Amino acid sequence: MSTAELAGAAPAVVAAAAERAGRFSARHIGTDAAAQRLMLDALGYDTVDALVGAAVPASIHVQPRATSSIPPAATEAEALAELRVLASQNRTARPMIGLGYYDTFTPSVIARNVLENPSWYTAYTPYQPEISQGRLEALINFQTMVTDLTGLATANASMLDESTAVVEGMLVARRASKSASNVFLVDADALPQTKALLEHRAAALGIEVRYTSFADLSEVAAFGAFLQYPGASGRVWDPTDAIAALHGHGGLAVVAADLLALTLLRSPGALGADVAVGTTQRFGVPLGFGGPHAGYMAVRAGLERQMPGRLVGVSQDAAGHPAYRLALQTREQHIRREKATSNICTAQVLLAVMASMYAVYHGPEGLRSIAGEVAQKAEALAARLREYGLVVRHDAFFDTIRVVTPGPSGRVVERARSKGYQLFWVDDATVGVSVDETTTADDLAVVAWAFGLPEAERDVRDLPFGEAEPLRGVAASLLRQEDFLTHPVFTAHRSETAMMRYLKTLADRDYALDRGMIPLGSCTMKLNAATEMAAVSWPEFSRVHPFAPEADVHGYLAMIEQLETWLAEVTGYDAVSLQPNAGSQGELAGLLAIRGYHRANGDTGRTVCLIPSSAHGTNAASAVLAGMKVVVVACDEAGNVDLGDLRAKIALHAAELAALMITYPSTHGVYEHEVLEITQAVHDAGGQVYVDGANLNALLGFARFGDLGGDVSHLNLHKTFAIPHGGGGPGVGPVAAKAHLAPYLPSHPLSQRADHAGGFVFEGGPVSAAPAGSASILPISWAYVRMMGAEGLKDATAAAVLAANYIAARLEDHYPVLYAGEGGLVAHECILDLRPLKEATGISVDDVAKRLIDYGFHAPTMSFPVAGTLMVEPTESEDLGEIERFIEAMIAIKAEALAVAAGEWPADDNPLVGAPHTAESVVAGEWTHPYSREKAVYPVHALVRTKYWPPVRRIDNAYGDRNLVCACPPIEAFA
Amino acid sequence: MSTAELAGAAPAVVAAAAERAGRFSARHIGTDAAAQRLMLDALGYDTVDALVGAAVPASIHVQPRATSSIPPAATEAEALAELRVLASQNRTARPMIGLGYYDTFTPSVIARNVLENPSWYTAYTPYQPEISQGRLEALINFQTMVTDLTGLATANASMLDESTAVVEGMLVARRASKSASNVFLVDADALPQTKALLEHRAAALGIEVRYTSFADLSEVAAFGAFLQYPGASGRVWDPTDAIAALHGHGGLAVVAADLLALTLLRSPGALGADVAVGTTQRFGVPLGFGGPHAGYMAVRAGLERQMPGRLVGVSQDAAGHPAYRLALQTREQHIRREKATSNICTAQVLLAVMASMYAVYHGPEGLRSIAGEVAQKAEALAARLREYGLVVRHDAFFDTIRVVTPGPSGRVVERARSKGYQLFWVDDATVGVSVDETTTADDLAVVAWAFGLPEAERDVRDLPFGEAEPLRGVAASLLRQEDFLTHPVFTAHRSETAMMRYLKTLADRDYALDRGMIPLGSCTMKLNAATEMAAVSWPEFSRVHPFAPEADVHGYLAMIEQLETWLAEVTGYDAVSLQPNAGSQGELAGLLAIRGYHRANGDTGRTVCLIPSSAHGTNAASAVLAGMKVVVVACDEAGNVDLGDLRAKIALHAAELAALMITYPSTHGVYEHEVLEITQAVHDAGGQVYVDGANLNALLGFARFGDLGGDVSHLNLHKTFAIPHGGGGPGVGPVAAKAHLAPYLPSHPLSQRADHAGGFVFEGGPVSAAPAGSASILPISWAYVRMMGAEGLKDATAAAVLAANYIAARLEDHYPVLYAGEGGLVAHECILDLRPLKEATGISVDDVAKRLIDYGFHAPTMSFPVAGTLMVEPTESEDLGEIERFIEAMIAIKAEALAVAAGEWPADDNPLVGAPHTAESVVAGEWTHPYSREKAVYPVHALVRTKYWPPVRRIDNAYGDRNLVCACPPIEAFA
Repeated sequence: MSTAELAGAAPAVVAAAAERAGRFSARHIGTDAAAQRLMLDALGYDTVDALVGAAVPASIHVQPRATSSIPPAATEAEALAELRVLASQNRTARPMIGLGYYDTFTPSVIARNVLENPSWYTAYTPYQPEISQGRLEALINFQTMVTDLTGLATANASMLDESTAVVEGMLVARRASKSASNVFLVDADALPQTKALLEHRAAALGIEVRYTSFADLSEVAAFGAFLQYPGASGRVWDPTDAIAALHGHGGLAVVAADLLALTLLRSPGALGADVAVGTTQRFGVPLGFGGPHAGYMAVRAGLERQMPGRLVGVSQDAAGHPAYRLALQTREQHIRREKATSNICTAQVLLAVMASMYAVYHGPEGLRSIAGEVAQKAEALAARLREYGLVVRHDAFFDTIRVVTPGPSGRVVERARSKGYQLFWVDDATVGVSVDETTTADDLAVVAWAFGLPEAERDVRDLPFGEAEPLRGVAASLLRQEDFLTHPVFTAHRSETAMMRYLKTLADRDYALDRGMIPLGSCTMKLNAATEMAAVSWPEFSRVHPFAPEADVHGYLAMIEQLETWLAEVTGYDAVSLQPNAGSQGELAGLLAIRGYHRANGDTGRTVCLIPSSAHGTNAASAVLAGMKVVVVACDEAGNVDLGDLRAKIALHAAELAALMITYPSTHGVYEHEVLEITQAVHDAGGQVYVDGANLNALLGFARFGDLGGDVSHLNLHKTFAIPHGGGGPGVGPVAAKAHLAPYLPSHPLSQRADHAGGFVFEGGPVSAAPAGSASILPISWAYVRMMGAEGLKDATAAAVLAANYIAARLEDHYPVLYAGEGGLVAHECILDLRPLKEATGISVDDVAKRLIDYGFHAPTMSFPVAGTLMVEPTESEDLGEIERFIEAMIAIKAEALAVAAGEWPADDNPLVGAPHTAESVVAGEWTHPYSREKAVYPVHALVRTKYWPPVRRIDNAYGDRNLVCACPPIEAFA
Repeated sequence: MSTAELAGAAPAVVAAAAERAGRFSARHIGTDAAAQRLMLDALGYDTVDALVGAAVPASIHVQPRATSSIPPAATEAEALAELRVLASQNRTARPMIGLGYYDTFTPSVIARNVLENPSWYTAYTPYQPEISQGRLEALINFQTMVTDLTGLATANASMLDESTAVVEGMLVARRASKSASNVFLVDADALPQTKALLEHRAAALGIEVRYTSFADLSEVAAFGAFLQYPGASGRVWDPTDAIAALHGHGGLAVVAADLLALTLLRSPGALGADVAVGTTQRFGVPLGFGGPHAGYMAVRAGLERQMPGRLVGVSQDAAGHPAYRLALQTREQHIRREKATSNICTAQVLLAVMASMYAVYHGPEGLRSIAGEVAQKAEALAARLREYGLVVRHDAFFDTIRVVTPGPSGRVVERARSKGYQLFWVDDATVGVSVDETTTADDLAVVAWAFGLPEAERDVRDLPFGEAEPLRGVAASLLRQEDFLTHPVFTAHRSETAMMRYLKTLADRDYALDRGMIPLGSCTMKLNAATEMAAVSWPEFSRVHPFAPEADVHGYLAMIEQLETWLAEVTGYDAVSLQPNAGSQGELAGLLAIRGYHRANGDTGRTVCLIPSSAHGTNAASAVLAGMKVVVVACDEAGNVDLGDLRAKIALHAAELAALMITYPSTHGVYEHEVLEITQAVHDAGGQVYVDGANLNALLGFARFGDLGGDVSHLNLHKTFAIPHGGGGPGVGPVAAKAHLAPYLPSHPLSQRADHAGGFVFEGGPVSAAPAGSASILPISWAYVRMMGAEGLKDATAAAVLAANYIAARLEDHYPVLYAGEGGLVAHECILDLRPLKEATGISVDDVAKRLIDYGFHAPTMSFPVAGTLMVEPTESEDLGEIERFIEAMIAIKAEALAVAAGEWPADDNPLVGAPHTAESVVAGEWTHPYSREKAVYPVHALVRTKYWPPVRRIDNAYGDRNLVCACPPIEAFA
């Protein structure tokens, strides 16, 4: 519309144009109407709705709703304004509750250049290590930090949180112990949330949890024990003898240790622990109402291969240079289906990076100073309270004290709260106080005043806490002797300038969404919009303790309730829990809900879980951890569940049938047309249906899990609802269920909420350390739904399905598309079969994936769910230009492979097997290859402008696993 | 200190260590005690204080102060907390005041990836164009946007603000007009702040400002005229005839136009204007209490070379590829000393980038839609008010209406304010209301209610403004016909994903402080800490109108008062004005204060300004613009002011002596030991002393301008006080003066303050459009001083002087250091003389500068103040590792030059004359050079890890000036 036209146009037209310009969905969805027209023409459909209508079986199309809980789409400005109102309803108090969560000062240089930098937060899990060297280096720093501080041999690249890490520690002990005992001893002074998780998880696995104070060392007939160090009460004691006794009977010791305390106290390794776990939250990661934070696990030598989660190791690239990559990918961490021992996939990479950078920034002396000051502050407060005749339990403590109150303890807690301080109500006569790096002398003064000391405020403020003796009550034998963080990386970047450049150097090595498409099938790498991310940084969301009083977190609770309501509506369920902090944990919570439901009905024998052979490995792993027996159902040649085999398996296990787990659309990227028959067959046999929500981005607005016959699902907010992948976490995996399963959804012993959206009361055990899981990133999904509106969500699905079908159609002549539904249509992703290419040319899926790096792309998902294939998911956020660029790259690579087959280049020396090519490789030394340097790195001329240079050549995975190194290599290695 | 030692250490030691860890100065200063020890040993000094004590003349050492207004250094957390308190004292109202400032929604993708991204804000002015292609491209987009919308031939790369741009427009008219008239006609409907600036600036230059409504076309005996379009009152009228009449008598028309309005209205070019000026603030740049924002200027063909400021043009590089660089560097914009016609140096690059990206993001239809909606909202409000019998002045308007109030207008303004809305009190019977893109129907309802309409709130909310007819009263002949923003860049990046990648692609092309040192003599490229930058993004600072009522801006006023106090103390002056929004404007304000002082004393004949030959060109330019006559004073061979010549010049001009301008330490980077004699001589002759503050970073904490005999100075907050350079602006240039000059410092007609820190009342005319200039970036300098404390500021100076002397000493054997003070010491920078090298090897300073790019460095300042030299200023923020890396690069380059001289490489084909080398240049085609590819791009092996790839080869400046292109080149040019 020209200006003159505009000026003369009907007002409504002008308003509509303005409305379009301000609509967020037009910014989120990459293809505009003109592009979609071109794509539809290529596919032979009139409208996007016609295309999706043809792809999605008519039988499951959602009915239009008269009313919706989802308000009309807000503009970005409106959404931010609403978030500001929600933020204002949280009270940024001074949290001194402790229990594993401490206020911390995130160095601004880290906040700005990591947490708020898309180069870090839009990256994917480092499965393509050649283009992930930056965050892999940060993770190696993280592992080095954890092994140094814990005094153990090997640490992984983070756990979901401390409490789930304790559970995983228990499972490591179970596997590694030769003890026949079924008992796991648990420290009576453990964190309350950890106790609740242990009880819930152990019950499903038939493990008996027995609490102990470790005083009676005869009580050691156990496969393992868990010790909290320092205890939840703050107490520091020496568990050396208890651990030795446990070892004497074949048990393993799992110790949860506070990393800051470990800068001053003997390490778990020195105490004899086999496994150390914990959280790195207080290393500069905001409280965020409970998460996300990086948990950690370290193990003694010999247990490396028992460790769950992801482990970064050093290997070498094709040029012999050191290079990082995920190590031991063949062990449990790859979720070996029914043989699985853990269901952990996602780590907390972004938070682990932040915590590791906090250590890089402060270095060993800095951390020791912070810890020393924290200990002094606790000591100073305790001394002053004792002076005034109050009883402080325990003489030996680090940062937490328990104080016996003269009157009812609630009065002290309320007095403190009136001044904006949150203390921990232990019981009617005891209050807990935890100090942290942010605590000031003024804070201590107010706390003392809250305990009713006369003139205390003035007194304590006059007492410089620097004069208190840190760790006064701790035995000298428990003081740390070993050095830590001796690698140069922990001293080389001390000025902010140096730190900023280090972060930039690492970010420059990585490929994230800010460079180009990451078309990862099953991972839904869509836009993570800046507006969605904004509120994560606001103190009203970031500086909130997960166990803060209900009155201080109204903003959070309101936002969570809205999000629960919206997610229930779009999935066709009744109740939603946002507690699970990863998809795997959502699965587990869902299966535990099914377990709880059957048991409540007296169906204790219902333990068989049917899982199609095409399922993601996590499904089976979660079933095992929910105490179920996995029975695999076959798929037919079209990739769909074999209905005949399903019926046979149901018949075989009718009385034991607990559940069927299916993914919809399937992991093959197609809409199965028989889904209603499938779910009906399970229900008829008394089973429950679990629908895996990994592929929800292909369904939203068009069909709903609940309408397909699903009883429970998990969703991946980091896939469908715009939470960034963070380079391999955080994730959020809400569990959504029909009303009959709601009572078995996760509760939490310290939750602020009695009920959830819809009035449901959840009574299942917890699956995450915090009541609302990774609460601080929920504003992202909230903003996504708020700005897209119901219509926008549907439009996004349609655009995603259109893009996948367009790519499938354009590439079909070059790479067969393995599976398609009726009408030859795929869902939101397509599987390109590269096996014929391999056969014809010798070029493998790996070669193609690495060659895509030379073309400036992140490879699609490799060999999942079918070996020798690439699964491509463009998402709705890519524009047609980028999609075409990808298609052209794939076609050009095919031509290169054919040239190899034609003998133009030798099989062992061509641009494909040589990929990826670093800048160094085309600059240094003689060029001996039969293809040119240009061909190597500029196969398309436009790359001259936008070239991403991979920092290493192809990495030898096997070399690294033969020579396992999982800590920072010495500087000389890079010479 | 080991842990055991720590645990056993005296508590005070622990506290001290913790205090050190938390001290910001240790993060800001790059060299720690160990590094400084090594450097001092190399220089032969025991302590840093001894070194600086020896360098700075004893006679000017500052006396220790008993008390200081500067509080002890705050930690980063404390400073942020204090800023939050200040922020809470500003009220984020809905500003509808207009007058050139409008609320706007900064697209989050731009805020996060430009304004909050060090890759953009820590860059320097693009004097090294090969490593500045990203922001040069953004600036070419800016220029294209301005030329398209204004309908003129050529636009520059931004002006400081609209009002100073109008003044510059007047000066262009003065130069270009052949009219003998001394009169400049000014629109009676111009913005009040623009009128005040015109009057003040014209007075100093003997130009007569005459107000007119342009009704009487016989009144055209003027060299030029200024028209506000639309007018300050909102009125839109057709000035075509007036302009034609003006032209008929040889006058030039300068039109200030609102760019958003121009998407719907005829352009200034179409109306016949010669010059268009204005602001781009409402294109997504936050209000920020008045700035910084990018002003603009565009001129018709033929006036290009008359334009002040910086102009980006297209040229080509050594490979023949198109490349951007600053064009026409030889005309006025290079400040030709006493022949200068403008003193503008700094532009507003960061803000120009943001505004241009707003246009890229919205594109032509988006901008038209926003404008159309704004016009509709204004129309809807006017219609409703008229319905209720109120008189709305002017039928033709865009976004602003003037309403006659039934009773006293103050009552309406107060009613609106009670609901959080700021209207403009025009006079006792008239109120102005301006709408903008953020205005909602609800807002209109409240405004209507404020005018006392019965039931109005409900009524207007029910009226969808989309039904109002935009520009209903504007003549059809004034509606825009021409297209604009037709270049593909304005449509190619419409999704947020595409926009994010475009910003990343551009940032990747540039070299900023986040990559490495920018050792630019006289520019002080120190750390811009993330904590300092944080508050700039907070809405309490960013969404504040510069003319908001005093009661709504208490936080700003308190912060400004503190900063004034602190700056006065550290410079030894009595009064400070933060209004000048660039160093050049601070100079001008200072000289105008001297002018005012002399005139008040009846000394109207005192118009001679003495300036040493070593002075920065801006000094002379500012003097000219202050109506002074420049007389140059010679320097001796040591680079110091020639005292004999000074005394002679004073004697010659005794009665006319207005001022001496000196820079201290001198632009030669040395502390002149005779400074007290110099200033005394001037004072004895009745002159005033202006001390240029460019080099304050060499003095802070050790000596004070006021104590040297300075009467007035400007400071550069973007040099000494940590405001980032933004890739070429913003800057802040406060003017500081002794009490006797305070009355002549800048005032402002719309200022909220009656007096300034110290109780001084300023009564000079304004030099910036906003009362507090670039207020929104003052929190940066505030935080810098607050976190450094007085001690930290002194430590920073010492570290900067140490680093410069260390580099001078280390490089002296390779490159002679041109000037040194007593003891052979330099100040905070050193001039390396490359003329002997050129003579011996033929390698020029340009070759060395470009070769430094290959080594991963930004070149030092080239050929200033002496041709054929490099001036190196490392600042205090670089660590020893980076300093050594630079030294080694310089030594290696010297060796390369010697190899050329030795005949190892030909003079016309060697790594130096071939520098910089792009990746493409070492990859593509045959390699025909006598040096290797590795030598070209990896002269040091460590570069393999951190390599910065320049996007173009050496740029041919002359080619671009011969073929002037200052708008986006067609895409085909890059094929």
